[in-house]
Amino acid sequence: MRAIDIIEKKRDGYELTAEEIDFFIQGYTRGDIPDYQAAAWLMAVYLRGMSERETRDLTLAMARSGDILDLSDVAPVVADKHSSGGIGDKVTLVVAPVVAACGVPVGKMTGRGLGFTGGTVDKLESIPGFRTDLSPQEFKAQLARIGIVITGQSENLAPADRKLYALRDVTGTVSSLPLIVSSIMSKKLAGGATAILLDVKVGSGAFMKTVEEASRLAEAMVRLGRELGRRVSALVSDMNQPLGWAVGNALEVQEAINALHEEGPPDLREHCLVVAAEMLALAGRVADSSEGVELAAQAIADGRAWRKFRALVAAQGGDVRFVDEPDRLPCAPITEPIPAPTDGYLQKVDAAQIGMAVVDLGGGREKKGDPIDHSVGVIVHYKVGDRVQKGTPLCTIYASDRVRLEQARDRLLKAHTIGPEPVPPLPLFYKKIPHQ
Amino acid sequence: MRAIDIIEKKRDGYELTAEEIDFFIQGYTRGDIPDYQAAAWLMAVYLRGMSERETRDLTLAMARSGDILDLSDVAPVVADKHSSGGIGDKVTLVVAPVVAACGVPVGKMTGRGLGFTGGTVDKLESIPGFRTDLSPQEFKAQLARIGIVITGQSENLAPADRKLYALRDVTGTVSSLPLIVSSIMSKKLAGGATAILLDVKVGSGAFMKTVEEASRLAEAMVRLGRELGRRVSALVSDMNQPLGWAVGNALEVQEAINALHEEGPPDLREHCLVVAAEMLALAGRVADSSEGVELAAQAIADGRAWRKFRALVAAQGGDVRFVDEPDRLPCAPITEPIPAPTDGYLQKVDAAQIGMAVVDLGGGREKKGDPIDHSVGVIVHYKVGDRVQKGTPLCTIYASDRVRLEQARDRLLKAHTIGPEPVPPLPLFYKKIPHQ
Repeated sequence: MRAIDIIEKKRDGYELTAEEIDFFIQGYTRGDIPDYQAAAWLMAVYLRGMSERETRDLTLAMARSGDILDLSDVAPVVADKHSSGGIGDKVTLVVAPVVAACGVPVGKMTGRGLGFTGGTVDKLESIPGFRTDLSPQEFKAQLARIGIVITGQSENLAPADRKLYALRDVTGTVSSLPLIVSSIMSKKLAGGATAILLDVKVGSGAFMKTVEEASRLAEAMVRLGRELGRRVSALVSDMNQPLGWAVGNALEVQEAINALHEEGPPDLREHCLVVAAEMLALAGRVADSSEGVELAAQAIADGRAWRKFRALVAAQGGDVRFVDEPDRLPCAPITEPIPAPTDGYLQKVDAAQIGMAVVDLGGGREKKGDPIDHSVGVIVHYKVGDRVQKGTPLCTIYASDRVRLEQARDRLLKAHTIGPEPVPPLPLFYKKIPHQ
Repeated sequence: MRAIDIIEKKRDGYELTAEEIDFFIQGYTRGDIPDYQAAAWLMAVYLRGMSERETRDLTLAMARSGDILDLSDVAPVVADKHSSGGIGDKVTLVVAPVVAACGVPVGKMTGRGLGFTGGTVDKLESIPGFRTDLSPQEFKAQLARIGIVITGQSENLAPADRKLYALRDVTGTVSSLPLIVSSIMSKKLAGGATAILLDVKVGSGAFMKTVEEASRLAEAMVRLGRELGRRVSALVSDMNQPLGWAVGNALEVQEAINALHEEGPPDLREHCLVVAAEMLALAGRVADSSEGVELAAQAIADGRAWRKFRALVAAQGGDVRFVDEPDRLPCAPITEPIPAPTDGYLQKVDAAQIGMAVVDLGGGREKKGDPIDHSVGVIVHYKVGDRVQKGTPLCTIYASDRVRLEQARDRLLKAHTIGPEPVPPLPLFYKKIPHQ
């Protein structure tokens, strides 16, 4: 077999065999196939597409490029969730302890933020001492001991995806359905969870811009999950404005802690209850979503979810004093509200621009490996549909210096559209794609 | 401007501006744009195509990536020819001295062979001492002095093409019309000739397999030539069997010398007269092709063409004793005829396989930089349509050792199809695309 023949076959629109896909992926991961051949192949895949069968084989090949965790000796069912990325998305920090507190182990490997989207690993690292580099052995041991673990992706988790994603990022081949599906699902597959909830975001702060394309992606992943023998369901949820109020690493941890204490933004709480309920239903812990919402709400109300979160922090080396008293978390030295420039209704938010404002402030990264400042961020005070009063704070900036603050201020003002006409609030969810 | 935006624009099927194309090509040539981004872009160009305007701008950008020879101070018109590559194609060796002998200066930079096709540089290097690495200054001085020069492509002739071609070769992006057109024409443009005859081959020993695709390529190049202010015409010629009898470097030089002495295969002579006539017409030396054929035949008959060839060899450091007595040229130690296995008519020849047999013998290269043996090759004794008699030599192998000989013998036998039904001979030319 030769890489060039596989490139030409896909270029000419033919279906690749499982063997050809595996040859290409393993060859690329080992470095036998160079970046430039992979780049040409990715563009051919982008423009010619892949059948469901090819996508499944690609996913399997990518999962097999590294270690595949087997968690069956830890628990019969292990839950996981995946979010396609958004602004202010601290859902994992709330939902994982809720679900674990309800008796379903949650084992999650997660990523860092890039561009306008934040990453759960970065958020957790706001907590001094919190380790996100657990080995597979530590992962399994902690899951068995306390039923919850959230760590960074281990080096050898779908290494093909790591290499391919970096290449896709610079070759214009990110937004391809089979490539997105296989990237997400290969990591979930290798992560070992058996009940996987996908939170596919749509809107101005998400990669998917329409409900249709988000649904297509969600449906493809749910179908693929079934073929791969995992229980997978998906929610298509709104990302036309930040989720909750806080955007920025430590600020989001604080908001998540509040949510675990029944405080904080109502949209975040509702979103988390629905996601948790789906995970509980998927794992067979409850009969349906409404029972799941009840159980999840109870776990928050009686403090079990909070204690699970605290146990997670302690188990991974985090200093619990910082979550017991979240005021101790890193906090930016300059705090400044941005007054609303006019009266009216908040019509629209460009969520990606809010994410970029946080990057401006130093709280995100433009490219992989950039250091980030956990203390900075933005708190938004309005949701789409809210009546805005001129002069009241539209949002509040948490900055480390004045120059960055001014840059972020401009972006934040431009990101909010205020108009005289009332508009309805945005829904939290558009669609649910049940397990098949 | 960013490479990624240009990749995505082409990926999405939009036309690139001249500035975008130039940015990409110069950036790639300098090494600012890496191979993997160029590979993705090439695949996008392959699958999305390019408009004529884009192809022209790509050609200009590639020509401008290095030096562009200005020959206007040498002669008002300088002729050149390009062949798209074939088996036994020693036409340049005959035609260039013929045209120069008729008073039209011929300045040609040419390539080495790769895969099943031979290259003029390799053929000329069969002549001991012959230099194919003239500097641009030497090129111009020799052209002014004796009106003929044939050398290898200088390092800085369309360096973008050198880099891009090597990348296309390993990324499945060779057979794209805009990429082929720009590759050929950028070099011709940079080479400085003003009257350019394109000999586009079609058939089993050519890259183009049908007259239609060869014509499309030829027409695109002729149109582009006009837009670039050069006089360009094209012939679409047959490459379903070797041209002439000899395939292999020194053997072909010998055959070319014979042709300059009015000897050797009739098809080669006819092909050369037509090509020379087109070049003379294009350069304005004759009113039409038939006058051109007459003038060319005369230049051969009265020995002027031969003397011009001899002057070329001498000027470029070649030892003229080897062309005066071509028996002195490198000759392989083992010569063996392959008897025809059956009676019948030669129905078909797989010309590429004959080229590969010469590669087997060591007379060609599988990859760039491989050394070659100038002495080996094959002499074919039949043309398609000829009656073949069992036991008479179908072809003769010139080999350096027995193992290679056996390998080539197998390939050569398989390359010839002999059948009981008579078939018509193949035409030499299918089409002429005149200067526009």
